[in-house]
Amino acid sequence: MAGKGLLLKADPIAAAFRDEVKASLSNAPRRPRLVGILATSSSPSKFYAEFTKKQCEELGFDFVLKKTGAADTGDLGEGEGVEEAIIEANEDPNVDGIMVYYPIFGAQQDHYLQQVVSPYKDVEGLHFKFHYNLYHNIRFIDPQSLASSGVPSVASAGVIKGEEPPAGTVKSIIPCTPLAIVKCLEHVGVYNKILPYGDRAYGRTITVVNRSEVVGRPLAALLANDGARVFSVDIDSIQEYTKRPRTSVERLYHPRHVVHPCNATLQECLALSDVVVSAVPAADYKVKTEWLKDGCVCVNVAADKNFENDVRDKASLYIPAVGKVTILMLLRNLLRLQQYTSSGRRPAS
Amino acid sequence: MAGKGLLLKADPIAAAFRDEVKASLSNAPRRPRLVGILATSSSPSKFYAEFTKKQCEELGFDFVLKKTGAADTGDLGEGEGVEEAIIEANEDPNVDGIMVYYPIFGAQQDHYLQQVVSPYKDVEGLHFKFHYNLYHNIRFIDPQSLASSGVPSVASAGVIKGEEPPAGTVKSIIPCTPLAIVKCLEHVGVYNKILPYGDRAYGRTITVVNRSEVVGRPLAALLANDGARVFSVDIDSIQEYTKRPRTSVERLYHPRHVVHPCNATLQECLALSDVVVSAVPAADYKVKTEWLKDGCVCVNVAADKNFENDVRDKASLYIPAVGKVTILMLLRNLLRLQQYTSSGRRPAS
Repeated sequence: MAGKGLLLKADPIAAAFRDEVKASLSNAPRRPRLVGILATSSSPSKFYAEFTKKQCEELGFDFVLKKTGAADTGDLGEGEGVEEAIIEANEDPNVDGIMVYYPIFGAQQDHYLQQVVSPYKDVEGLHFKFHYNLYHNIRFIDPQSLASSGVPSVASAGVIKGEEPPAGTVKSIIPCTPLAIVKCLEHVGVYNKILPYGDRAYGRTITVVNRSEVVGRPLAALLANDGARVFSVDIDSIQEYTKRPRTSVERLYHPRHVVHPCNATLQECLALSDVVVSAVPAADYKVKTEWLKDGCVCVNVAADKNFENDVRDKASLYIPAVGKVTILMLLRNLLRLQQYTSSGRRPAS
Repeated sequence: MAGKGLLLKADPIAAAFRDEVKASLSNAPRRPRLVGILATSSSPSKFYAEFTKKQCEELGFDFVLKKTGAADTGDLGEGEGVEEAIIEANEDPNVDGIMVYYPIFGAQQDHYLQQVVSPYKDVEGLHFKFHYNLYHNIRFIDPQSLASSGVPSVASAGVIKGEEPPAGTVKSIIPCTPLAIVKCLEHVGVYNKILPYGDRAYGRTITVVNRSEVVGRPLAALLANDGARVFSVDIDSIQEYTKRPRTSVERLYHPRHVVHPCNATLQECLALSDVVVSAVPAADYKVKTEWLKDGCVCVNVAADKNFENDVRDKASLYIPAVGKVTILMLLRNLLRLQQYTSSGRRPAS
């Protein structure tokens, strides 16, 4: 197998976070409770719910699975009762985190449900407030600000000075799948620790295939906010995300990525890319190995494999799945949200 | 042309609202300013922007068109700068309402943008808070509640007692396209004024073809909240929306529609329907005239005609477009939002 790149499963990456999460848990004011809401008969969702339960129990979290809709016994339809289940968990003071097993109704209606989850219990980081902070590279927040419907004004967005939150602020919640991918890329050295925090992906060119609001767009923004040049590839367009300002207007922005149209083809993007992340939810979609830059890092995020079997003929590293890291990011978010509350920063209602 | 139903253009329906809007405008504390944000090169969007401008100017509103992205001169891409333009309008105290010409990036990313618009300036009613109120049949709100990210608890949702908001509350904003359709149906007698407010569509069966978060689902919910039995038809499923509780659990809810799975076919739904509303954004989609119930009311909401040329062989009334009513609903929302602010109910920031 000479010349073949390394196959890297997520387990060793997850291991470090498992230790971190265990340590944080031992300092928690009480055992955090996560409610999982399963509202469909989908096998992958059911499987993921069981996986969450197992992980929670192994680590010492309290996990309650709430079944409704077609997941419940009786003759309810797909998704029936899911909104009521979320509202009940929002209002239950014993619940610290809520995770909903999507997809349920399709992207649009699911997006509505994601806003129903209280941001104080949103372990998945799918609430608009967290997306807004991510897109605007607002890393530290006053937890009270989550109680307001408004968006932070540009003037109040602090400039990043270091990795630790300034007094009176906490780290914002980052959607757990994009965050898990960033953690994998940190682990394999795509992030350069000799560079200053907030710019450690500078110098890297990364292609992200998929531009959904759940994975692709937040991931492209995170990577570009960290300094990378990112090609965001969707079914009908390619965009370039970069933090390096090109115009005088861009120089006035709070330092964060901007998006430019891009005329390059996927083949041209891949030829330039040190890293390729693919998250296309289609069994027949494959990134062509022959288009990859020799020695690149490939990360598959889709349930179906988006890379060809011979991907390691070109890739120096191939990570076939990130789910085991994602669940740890979710539990890390859960501990952080509990902290927002127990530090007395969260409003009473 | 014996036996042919009536063709009803939206103009006479719009006329009554035009008078109402003019009267409200004459009582406004100052001329309300609407900012339209055009960020794409799309011809229908450009056309609609010009239409808004013309309507505003005729009626005496202040309209400012802000062009960015591919709508602007220069070499910006589709949608570039739209989020910054929204934020600027949010922060400008001279702006009372913001309207964004969608589609820009596609449903998911556009949904994100809809949350960036301040609910205090959201004339289109596309913010999550307004959708939540609509789905939960919460008609009257404390305008202060728009400042909070949380959703109203079920306990605080008032029961409808009448058409006028109780002291300390104002009417919630309703998304303008679904609202325009309801107003058309009121005009043609689908709503029965002899029934109590909040239940005036009781006894009507209505099919709504399309279940997007912008038109179809809010419309189905509005009609069912008003008492109608609604079939909500999407490309891959049919659901039934009804306010009449069937189970003991449903009887405990704040009175509002619930959704049930439905095994009927479109043909079976249409055979039962007194009203058919279609909003499918596809030129080749047509509701079959032969499937319509004799004497029904048909409303086309799509840019392309969703009904066959012979629709009036079966329909007693056919409304081919509602855009002229929609713009008046938007201006009505603008006046209402200005009232939220000028009554001192809106928070300072």
